[in-house]
Amino acid sequence: MPPKDEISAARDRIAPYVRRTPISELRGFGLSYPVEMKFEQMQHTGSFKARGAFNTLLSQEVPEGGVVAASGGNHGAAVAYAAARLGHRARIYVPEIAGPAKMELIRSTGAELQVVKGAYAEAAARAAEWREATGAMEIHAYDAPTTVEGQGTCIAEWEDQGLQADTVLIAVGGGGLIAGALGWLSGARKVVAVEPERACALNAALVAGAPVDVEVAGVAANSLGARRIGQICFDLAQVQGIERVTVRDRNITLAQEALWREARQLVEPAGATALAALMSGAYKPEKDERVAVLICGGNVAPDPLAS
Amino acid sequence: MPPKDEISAARDRIAPYVRRTPISELRGFGLSYPVEMKFEQMQHTGSFKARGAFNTLLSQEVPEGGVVAASGGNHGAAVAYAAARLGHRARIYVPEIAGPAKMELIRSTGAELQVVKGAYAEAAARAAEWREATGAMEIHAYDAPTTVEGQGTCIAEWEDQGLQADTVLIAVGGGGLIAGALGWLSGARKVVAVEPERACALNAALVAGAPVDVEVAGVAANSLGARRIGQICFDLAQVQGIERVTVRDRNITLAQEALWREARQLVEPAGATALAALMSGAYKPEKDERVAVLICGGNVAPDPLAS
Repeated sequence: MPPKDEISAARDRIAPYVRRTPISELRGFGLSYPVEMKFEQMQHTGSFKARGAFNTLLSQEVPEGGVVAASGGNHGAAVAYAAARLGHRARIYVPEIAGPAKMELIRSTGAELQVVKGAYAEAAARAAEWREATGAMEIHAYDAPTTVEGQGTCIAEWEDQGLQADTVLIAVGGGGLIAGALGWLSGARKVVAVEPERACALNAALVAGAPVDVEVAGVAANSLGARRIGQICFDLAQVQGIERVTVRDRNITLAQEALWREARQLVEPAGATALAALMSGAYKPEKDERVAVLICGGNVAPDPLAS
Repeated sequence: MPPKDEISAARDRIAPYVRRTPISELRGFGLSYPVEMKFEQMQHTGSFKARGAFNTLLSQEVPEGGVVAASGGNHGAAVAYAAARLGHRARIYVPEIAGPAKMELIRSTGAELQVVKGAYAEAAARAAEWREATGAMEIHAYDAPTTVEGQGTCIAEWEDQGLQADTVLIAVGGGGLIAGALGWLSGARKVVAVEPERACALNAALVAGAPVDVEVAGVAANSLGARRIGQICFDLAQVQGIERVTVRDRNITLAQEALWREARQLVEPAGATALAALMSGAYKPEKDERVAVLICGGNVAPDPLAS
């Protein structure tokens, strides 16, 4: 099936389990134009990742050994939540940089949480070992068709809710969310990839002409810090000639502060990264160009209610 | 004009200045049924109060001396913001219990902030003195027609956005927001007044047969702690035979925690009070009764981004 049909099928499949997250057009943030936003951090477990997790688990038979995932945190929480909701065992490998809030979120679902020294790649290696040893089903965080198609339901839903924008800005880590958007939109709207300067695997890949390993660091690294962009995302981005910008950590923090101060939305750095591209001027809309920003995650650290 | 027409007029009047806040239907919170929510804490200055403030300032000529308000915090911030946006001077009297986050919010608009020892009544007395001495225009926090009509635009907007509920639960302090809802709905949907046990001026008034002074305390007192219910609210509540429930502080805190844990919405206690009525069972919907909860304020203390 073409990507759009796969995403439509995913949408029907996951509808009973995911939230239709709210949208709004907001003025403020020091911008002279309004910005449409979708508050996907209100999704179960605080990010869009629940969409891909449910779609994957509902697309195939889950073995007795349950599921396994490697994740900077949000994907792991989503897989843990979806597995619990559907009655499967889950084992989640998390790099230590994920932070306590995301780890607690995973633990709270009842999943086995495995904290791994190092970055995402080390967690991924451990997850692969576990899968080989036990036959557990692995759910990739961003580079598997069912994951990407699940994430694509986010933009499909937004269009159904009346998205007006000419241009949608989306933060990129491993590229699952933006790949879903590219697959769904197929050029119908402009998609701008926004990466932190210190975690820009898509940018590096498009410059190099193929996915390459990059060093990752910075305020958003615990969710956008994929070392290598997903092949699915890379292929779609290259074919569609995607526009991309990078933003500094300082600008991500300013956008995060502005979302709280001006709209009482407390989001993680990744969740503010797309807005940072507008606030910093990294992306400047043309006159009359309507823009939209996907707020993708809200798992801040420290947890504001931890005491 | 009948209340509904006044509220329609208010809606047109304030439209260029206020946000159309997002809505969503959410499952979770330990409830077996979905709840429609409107996230009015995303309004400018973090609560619905901006609606009444803009409506009042845009309904009449503002004197040279500017405006004055007494407020537990949210109304003061809204008046300060609206005055600044419309080019007027503002002086805001705030009881010391308001807390530093709300005080900083008021200061940030450029208004003159006056912190008053004691509770809301003392701040109100000081504001009245200032008005008499200077001729400044006073904006009442909840018991003036233009305030109530402005707050009524919130439920009017929600109906325009497709509100389905049979029953809308609204937290009550001085009663401006719920009076606006009663004025707009006129019985078309059931409205349930939700008050903290330790700040229940409407409940006390309906029992007594007239507005009476009550002692106020508890986690939501800095926004719901009106000592006496507004006459406008009382009259509407009595005529329409409103249903009312009270909730304990502990249940307000649990609802506040649940809104963060399950939907990444960090709200102040008042903003979680209506949901607390459902979660605690203080209000139990009938089978197939559809319910909605207005999330009215997000100015938590301490500010999660204060460092």
